[in-house]
Amino acid sequence: MKGFQKLTLSYEALQSWLNAFQIETRVTIVPLTEASNRICAEDIQAKQDLPRFDRSAVDGFAVKSEDTTGTSQSKPFLFQLTERPELEDAGPRQAKQIWTGTPIPKGANAVIMLENTRQINDKIEVWNQATPYENVSRKGEDIKKGETAVQEGARLKPQHLGLLAALGHSEINVMQKPKIAILATGNELVEAGNQLGENQIHESNRIMLSAMCLELETEPLDLGIAMDDADDIKEKIQIGLKIADAVITTGGTSVGGLDLVPDVVNQMGKPGVIIHGVAIRPGMPTALAVLNEKPIMILSGNPVAAIVGFEVFGRPLVCKMLGMKKEEPRPTVEAVMARRVTAALGRKTFTRVKVFEKNGEILAEPISTRGSGAISTMTRGNGFVIVPENREGIDENEKVIVRMFASIEA
Amino acid sequence: MKGFQKLTLSYEALQSWLNAFQIETRVTIVPLTEASNRICAEDIQAKQDLPRFDRSAVDGFAVKSEDTTGTSQSKPFLFQLTERPELEDAGPRQAKQIWTGTPIPKGANAVIMLENTRQINDKIEVWNQATPYENVSRKGEDIKKGETAVQEGARLKPQHLGLLAALGHSEINVMQKPKIAILATGNELVEAGNQLGENQIHESNRIMLSAMCLELETEPLDLGIAMDDADDIKEKIQIGLKIADAVITTGGTSVGGLDLVPDVVNQMGKPGVIIHGVAIRPGMPTALAVLNEKPIMILSGNPVAAIVGFEVFGRPLVCKMLGMKKEEPRPTVEAVMARRVTAALGRKTFTRVKVFEKNGEILAEPISTRGSGAISTMTRGNGFVIVPENREGIDENEKVIVRMFASIEA
Repeated sequence: MKGFQKLTLSYEALQSWLNAFQIETRVTIVPLTEASNRICAEDIQAKQDLPRFDRSAVDGFAVKSEDTTGTSQSKPFLFQLTERPELEDAGPRQAKQIWTGTPIPKGANAVIMLENTRQINDKIEVWNQATPYENVSRKGEDIKKGETAVQEGARLKPQHLGLLAALGHSEINVMQKPKIAILATGNELVEAGNQLGENQIHESNRIMLSAMCLELETEPLDLGIAMDDADDIKEKIQIGLKIADAVITTGGTSVGGLDLVPDVVNQMGKPGVIIHGVAIRPGMPTALAVLNEKPIMILSGNPVAAIVGFEVFGRPLVCKMLGMKKEEPRPTVEAVMARRVTAALGRKTFTRVKVFEKNGEILAEPISTRGSGAISTMTRGNGFVIVPENREGIDENEKVIVRMFASIEA
Repeated sequence: MKGFQKLTLSYEALQSWLNAFQIETRVTIVPLTEASNRICAEDIQAKQDLPRFDRSAVDGFAVKSEDTTGTSQSKPFLFQLTERPELEDAGPRQAKQIWTGTPIPKGANAVIMLENTRQINDKIEVWNQATPYENVSRKGEDIKKGETAVQEGARLKPQHLGLLAALGHSEINVMQKPKIAILATGNELVEAGNQLGENQIHESNRIMLSAMCLELETEPLDLGIAMDDADDIKEKIQIGLKIADAVITTGGTSVGGLDLVPDVVNQMGKPGVIIHGVAIRPGMPTALAVLNEKPIMILSGNPVAAIVGFEVFGRPLVCKMLGMKKEEPRPTVEAVMARRVTAALGRKTFTRVKVFEKNGEILAEPISTRGSGAISTMTRGNGFVIVPENREGIDENEKVIVRMFASIEA
């Protein structure tokens, strides 16, 4: 009943946990139109050169570059326009009108821009010399046949989909979305929308964690609310282990009177709880467990601690479950602390800050509040300054890297 | 037939266009579980204080703080444990066991952490003095009744949903997703998945633009591919104007032989094309139009130019259609150019770079390629360095702000 005897460093806790179970990624094929933001499940080699043929990069006239040697605006050469599909090997200087993206006709090796010519009946004046392949997009210059277009584990952004479409793909193998079941525990919790009794509060962690799972393209499943009752918690975690690939719980984690969830998990099987008590703030009572080869993340009921717990353990877990090569980082910005913040020595402290620009300088203003559990510190702020375990704070005017969870103008 | 006589600066082009039509945002109510990443359509005031009551921030014992004055680890005071719901006004030093999150009993005004006590039968030794409201989360300290919890125009991140749930909301008014119809034009285009004939290429712009629309939480609608034929283009744009709030086309924009789409739009009505030719690179032949009070964005067929056109005009348009207060910025990072890049004087040049960390320094390496239209410059890179109109390039070792379109490790 005397608090945690020992806190595990967050990095060590994460490694121990992730090493305690196997992850099998599963693959599914989806149309490209449904692949946005999914994780690519295979190395995709280009099936063809892109472009497939030399093509014009501009609107203008295809010519032999050597025919232009010596021409100038003051002494332009005249070229004969041809309607034939290719330039003749012999004969006078020839030019064929051509548009952006159309193939370079056989015999030509450069394109004179429209702007650098003047048409006179069936001839054009060419005012500029062209080097070989000037204004030509070469076959394979975008990507060569056999080159890797998209790597396994990459998140498919619009540009990846464009490249895949250009290479002729209409569907793609992506990682199946891992299912993550989410349970809130606590006698005081009431479903949003329902009336509160005395001493009750509205449950708010499931919707947050669910949205964080959605953002990463996993499938959250709702296990509802469990009372502070071992049987109720056990039953709902069992359902979670059955229907999902991972389970997240919130509440009932502190070492004290209501240390319920870790106890229940330990009763349910081996190895059970691997870590309980992590050197982070908030989020110290976080526990990490494994049952049936599936990870269970036991988060604090404090909403900010739950978010920080997900940040530290949930994101790396999800990235691993999605088969990503490494954790997908949040955007970061370098900023200058607008005010000193204090932190707990020996704990990695997640300070919420508001990053903003002032006179061309990026400043990070700590969100002042008495309560570390106030969720409004997350809606008023847009990033975390992470104070390492060996620091008691960050000084005013010190440079920091801020991990952004909302945009700067938000 | 001689190219653009005058290019409009991108900022001026955007302002002229956005001022040429009215946008009516529409509101819809959705369950909180479906509101992730949507845009809040009303200022939401807290209906209640959060927390609703003073509650304990720790596991421990509720006491009157004044009863602890003078106690210490060497000379601890003894407190009588009570089971009653509140501390008595008179009588000896009393303490009531309490858990994180539970209400502070009447008569108490501070909580002694479990770790700073020792239980002896029905009494506890208190080793630390407590200041008033120590370890107490005060009523309203997170947010006060009547304070704005979420602002109209804010994108709903997990933390906003958590705050709304904590305040008892189970549904919320969000902006309806604007519908954006997307058309590709070009005789050379073939639907992905189909066989290519000679001189044909796979169409790849619609999937990219569609994914960019999805990322911003709008609803893309597919108008398919139109031939380089005025009637075909006209018919499909008309469908787009009927079913959607905005239309995007790609291809057929350059001043030259196949300047089809702007011509067709001008034939369809007034005001038609407002801007044609913008001082950006790539994306110079972009045109901006209005028909039936609806915006039409006429992008180049070059995939990178289409992306840049969407970046410069599409994102601000969508943010305005979504009722956001200002454009939602992409994440940016400060980096050092790893190599000189050249740019076109008089144009805002969007150079693709790969940002990476090396020896603690953030570097931006220009993606080298001959072709500015190569989509792989976007998949190999992760950000844009935007060279302003008055610069001919950026020097090696110069500091730049990079607009990120993928994460640094991607």
